[in-house]
Amino acid sequence: MNVIKYPSKVTWPELVKRPHLDVSQLNATVQSVLDDVRQRGDEAVKSYEEKFDHAVLNSLAVSEEEIEEAQTLVSPELLDSLKLAHDNIFKFHHAQQFEGVSLETSKGVKCWQKSVAIQKVGLYIPGGTAPLFSTVLMLATPAKIAGCKEIVLCTPPNKEGKVNPAILAAAKIAGVSRIYKAGGVQAIGAMAYGTESVPKVYKIFGPGNQYVMAAKQQVSLHEVAIDMPAGPSEVCVIADKESNPVFVAADLLSQAEHGIDSQVFLITDSELMLNEVKKQVTIQLERLPRKEIAAKSLDNSKLVLVHDLDEAMELSNAYAPEHLILATTNSDTLAAKVINAGSVFLGKWACESAGDYASGTNHTLPTHQYALAYNGVNLDSYMRKITFQHLTKEGIDSIGKAVVCMAENEQLEAHANAMRLRMQCQE
Amino acid sequence: MNVIKYPSKVTWPELVKRPHLDVSQLNATVQSVLDDVRQRGDEAVKSYEEKFDHAVLNSLAVSEEEIEEAQTLVSPELLDSLKLAHDNIFKFHHAQQFEGVSLETSKGVKCWQKSVAIQKVGLYIPGGTAPLFSTVLMLATPAKIAGCKEIVLCTPPNKEGKVNPAILAAAKIAGVSRIYKAGGVQAIGAMAYGTESVPKVYKIFGPGNQYVMAAKQQVSLHEVAIDMPAGPSEVCVIADKESNPVFVAADLLSQAEHGIDSQVFLITDSELMLNEVKKQVTIQLERLPRKEIAAKSLDNSKLVLVHDLDEAMELSNAYAPEHLILATTNSDTLAAKVINAGSVFLGKWACESAGDYASGTNHTLPTHQYALAYNGVNLDSYMRKITFQHLTKEGIDSIGKAVVCMAENEQLEAHANAMRLRMQCQE
Repeated sequence: MNVIKYPSKVTWPELVKRPHLDVSQLNATVQSVLDDVRQRGDEAVKSYEEKFDHAVLNSLAVSEEEIEEAQTLVSPELLDSLKLAHDNIFKFHHAQQFEGVSLETSKGVKCWQKSVAIQKVGLYIPGGTAPLFSTVLMLATPAKIAGCKEIVLCTPPNKEGKVNPAILAAAKIAGVSRIYKAGGVQAIGAMAYGTESVPKVYKIFGPGNQYVMAAKQQVSLHEVAIDMPAGPSEVCVIADKESNPVFVAADLLSQAEHGIDSQVFLITDSELMLNEVKKQVTIQLERLPRKEIAAKSLDNSKLVLVHDLDEAMELSNAYAPEHLILATTNSDTLAAKVINAGSVFLGKWACESAGDYASGTNHTLPTHQYALAYNGVNLDSYMRKITFQHLTKEGIDSIGKAVVCMAENEQLEAHANAMRLRMQCQE
Repeated sequence: MNVIKYPSKVTWPELVKRPHLDVSQLNATVQSVLDDVRQRGDEAVKSYEEKFDHAVLNSLAVSEEEIEEAQTLVSPELLDSLKLAHDNIFKFHHAQQFEGVSLETSKGVKCWQKSVAIQKVGLYIPGGTAPLFSTVLMLATPAKIAGCKEIVLCTPPNKEGKVNPAILAAAKIAGVSRIYKAGGVQAIGAMAYGTESVPKVYKIFGPGNQYVMAAKQQVSLHEVAIDMPAGPSEVCVIADKESNPVFVAADLLSQAEHGIDSQVFLITDSELMLNEVKKQVTIQLERLPRKEIAAKSLDNSKLVLVHDLDEAMELSNAYAPEHLILATTNSDTLAAKVINAGSVFLGKWACESAGDYASGTNHTLPTHQYALAYNGVNLDSYMRKITFQHLTKEGIDSIGKAVVCMAENEQLEAHANAMRLRMQCQE
């Protein structure tokens, strides 16, 4: 852990810098897999599944029987937990439904917005030893609320050609229409172009490794939209002298265990607290099964001492963290000053894992300073706000002259003409 | 104009296909300009301005005097028109302000969303003989309403190193903070990386040629967000036997005059109307100053005869047009069935040019079937909805067990631990 005391503002840009991410060296490999999937469809996907996941598949589609079987393989306690989490995610995202906006801008000119679901969406869920079933809930629940007609999920199978039952259980709870056994670049290609089995979708969501990220970027240049660019996960905790150092240390560690490239950032105005947290991290680290990973990530972590909490907030806004924990007594005051962050946790009880799983907010969030321009996945991510306008003859009288004048000045005579003809017409 | 009668559904995918857009062959050229701007800053931008716009510039920034002077160079009629258009655009986008969403998902667990402006945005306005001052209003007005702190505009100067006065007048009305003389790839690079003069921004908006589009795509892979991918402009008109063929023809032509690659699509259930429109297009075309362009675009246009208006709407949804004009008597009924479109115009009086300039809706819209997944620029495009959560001890009691269970099953022990420590703590 790197302790930085009272850094001058000149050093902030360096301080908040993320490690350089460049997946372009993977582009050639990724492109060749994408091209192959586009040309050979299912056959190509199956061959890559054999190569990369060591799974020999007859069918890419997960069968109804496999989904049913999964419900019996998951412990009742986990099923209950999934349902509780789904319930909260559902409530929060359902509350985000757009009521619509409608108004008369000039006499006889009515404009409105209406939100319509993206008809086909694709969700990618990585596999591996720790299956991210929580991400299934995060991505599928708002898709269902939005009313997406087709919700496709791709996730890699294990060597026996099976999908983790917790992923299938979560998918059933959240209302996914179709599940396919496909991982990595071949899964992104299958959803972007469509194959004999996998439907083409219009937008792809979900996390993944560098190859998946490169594939999402490449297909986003032509075929489909994607949720957002992604980098390693990160947390920033702001603490004061009243914070609970045991909690703060636990929160830093729960970020650090994600991966060796996870970003861990503490900002505090209390040197005593900084030292306490540091001590607690060392103690708690010892007990963690993933302590090697967490220790490596902590090597790059930054514990920053600042003069006061206003400066802390300013530094956090410059950092633009994915997760921001305001572990201070005056967390409400600080929260009002948040400008750049993905999701914010207020007070000593709000640990990041609450939001990672079950508070109701989405855990698919902008990393790598993308919070400067992006927000996390929410109900909007699955919809488009289409604009409408209705004009009466009175509307033509209100704006016709201005439209003709502007069109003429932009040298678009046919635009002017379309309006002029209507101005001349008497009903 | 190509007339297609009663096409079978099997042929629809081919019918709605856009010309293949691939800017990747420009990537090497574009990348070298971007790299140069990143390294040499202002000096590089100035050298490309000299090379491509034949303008020798001392300063990239447009001075206060130049902005003031522009107000006197624009006709009072155009100034009034700009103000009327701005007024309507302002009203409609102001009505889109997000009230916030807040609720208690479980006892003691409060979640909310708050919308915060992207702090720095960049607007690109192409130059040329027909300056797109209307796009200045469309992009800058919502940026101002959102509360973006820095609104940067880049637009190429003419050979004398001057920016078109109508662009400066529109920028002043809409509240742009800073204007720079820079066009093409060098402008996108300047806003993406920042130079000595031009501030780095977090999101870049605006239209442009293939080079600008390729540059926006490239910087979006690493540095900044962009509004949306772009292709040639397009309109789809749905007409029935009651439509006014003179108006319909004028609307098709006002799309066709944009460029030789503009997409013009008519769907009707009346063969009589189809023939009438065709005749009217020929008559009106003759009178247009840009008739060569329009004629070339019309060569690729499609006039499609279908059995009824439901089929027309279904075909339009498959086409996913940027602009959709419902020139039918029952436009309200059809409007309810719109699934994929950028902006929709209802009834005989609502010509596309109304929305292009002054109805209040935004004219920066998804082309090239991107309407399947994207909406046009709106107030949301300039903001991020940040999520917040606050938990009390009761909240921990509500969701703690589920969080621990899920974290354990995802093998994220530190996540479970951060929650367990809070469950064990008594206030």
